[in-house]
Amino acid sequence: MPPVIALIGKPDSGKTTLLEKLIPELRHRGYRIGTIKHHVHTFEMDKPGKDTWRHKQAGASTVALSSPTGLGIIRDVNEDLTIEELVGRYYGDIDLVIAEGYKRLGLPKVEVFRSALHGEPLPDRDDTWVAMVSDTAGPTDIPCFSLDDVVGLADFLETRFIKPFPKQKTSLLVNGQPVYLNSFVESFLRQAIAGMTCSLKGCQNPQEIIISIRQATTE
Amino acid sequence: MPPVIALIGKPDSGKTTLLEKLIPELRHRGYRIGTIKHHVHTFEMDKPGKDTWRHKQAGASTVALSSPTGLGIIRDVNEDLTIEELVGRYYGDIDLVIAEGYKRLGLPKVEVFRSALHGEPLPDRDDTWVAMVSDTAGPTDIPCFSLDDVVGLADFLETRFIKPFPKQKTSLLVNGQPVYLNSFVESFLRQAIAGMTCSLKGCQNPQEIIISIRQATTE
Repeated sequence: MPPVIALIGKPDSGKTTLLEKLIPELRHRGYRIGTIKHHVHTFEMDKPGKDTWRHKQAGASTVALSSPTGLGIIRDVNEDLTIEELVGRYYGDIDLVIAEGYKRLGLPKVEVFRSALHGEPLPDRDDTWVAMVSDTAGPTDIPCFSLDDVVGLADFLETRFIKPFPKQKTSLLVNGQPVYLNSFVESFLRQAIAGMTCSLKGCQNPQEIIISIRQATTE
Repeated sequence: MPPVIALIGKPDSGKTTLLEKLIPELRHRGYRIGTIKHHVHTFEMDKPGKDTWRHKQAGASTVALSSPTGLGIIRDVNEDLTIEELVGRYYGDIDLVIAEGYKRLGLPKVEVFRSALHGEPLPDRDDTWVAMVSDTAGPTDIPCFSLDDVVGLADFLETRFIKPFPKQKTSLLVNGQPVYLNSFVESFLRQAIAGMTCSLKGCQNPQEIIISIRQATTE
């Protein structure tokens, strides 16, 4: 699983505006960036009247729009997916995931604070706060970047989260939750499965293997 | 992988309108239906100005909007994903996938033909055509349903595609392509992997296991 940080801040503090400068900077450095936004209510992502929108309205559980350059998927879920499940399932090829909001989770947090708009930063700052982005001098115990210093912030994220992160060869999700694999277990699982797989027809040179297993609960 | 059919027909023949009646009928029977629409050009699925749209515009490779009832994901791809890869990755919990278009593939095809609009059905009909939906008497060698007979069409799809389809417990994608597993291999792989997995911490009762393995090409 790639590293995940939460970008937090009071309403209108400029989280999305910051991302609009930060994402290109990180992308320019060669990294693939993913974002996740949480929505508490039912949302509509598609455009009313489009075919995929009509399929979804008619009751399709999953609809996809596929093109040579992009893929859009809208699907029903029964409950909020956890960040771990989302990232484990859909962000395998990403170098850094930035989640907007998700303040309550234990993710490393970067807070955007504009004193011109709000008197105080978010309350209850704890040691999951790793940096502040602000129009004023911030706390002295964590790095603070000015609203325009996306280069500084990108340097920090690159050094602290992207570069140290080991490129995991194997990820394991059990019942939707990622399972930590130490290097012995990772190597054992990967080589055992690659070994079983490459003896199957058409699988002699497996660069990517994805196995999904569903076990009936009543068995 | 669930069964996949292609819904085809000339432009404006009423494919989406038919789906708007067929999907609720199949859903009412307890099936989860997925749809896939192909787009030849760059598409825009999100709503301009929304945060996820702004993230994507800024260069994020994958953006997601997650809520307690739905999930929307828009991501870059380097080339058209094959139907197999799409279905293998994203439609594991679906009972029938209906692809709009995709006439050139060898998928079982249902053609919508309105004689009021077009003189002739699509040319080059071959044995991948399994049914016709039309405002006129169709060919006699395959079932033909009237435009309003969604119950008849749903019966046909249920009998021919949904019910005979074995609920596969294990799916294997290698380099993006699904690999056929006979029952011996399926059972061997599933039990070997479930056995290895359930000895890991927190994995004692694995109902769903997803393993992704990426092997470096240069090793």
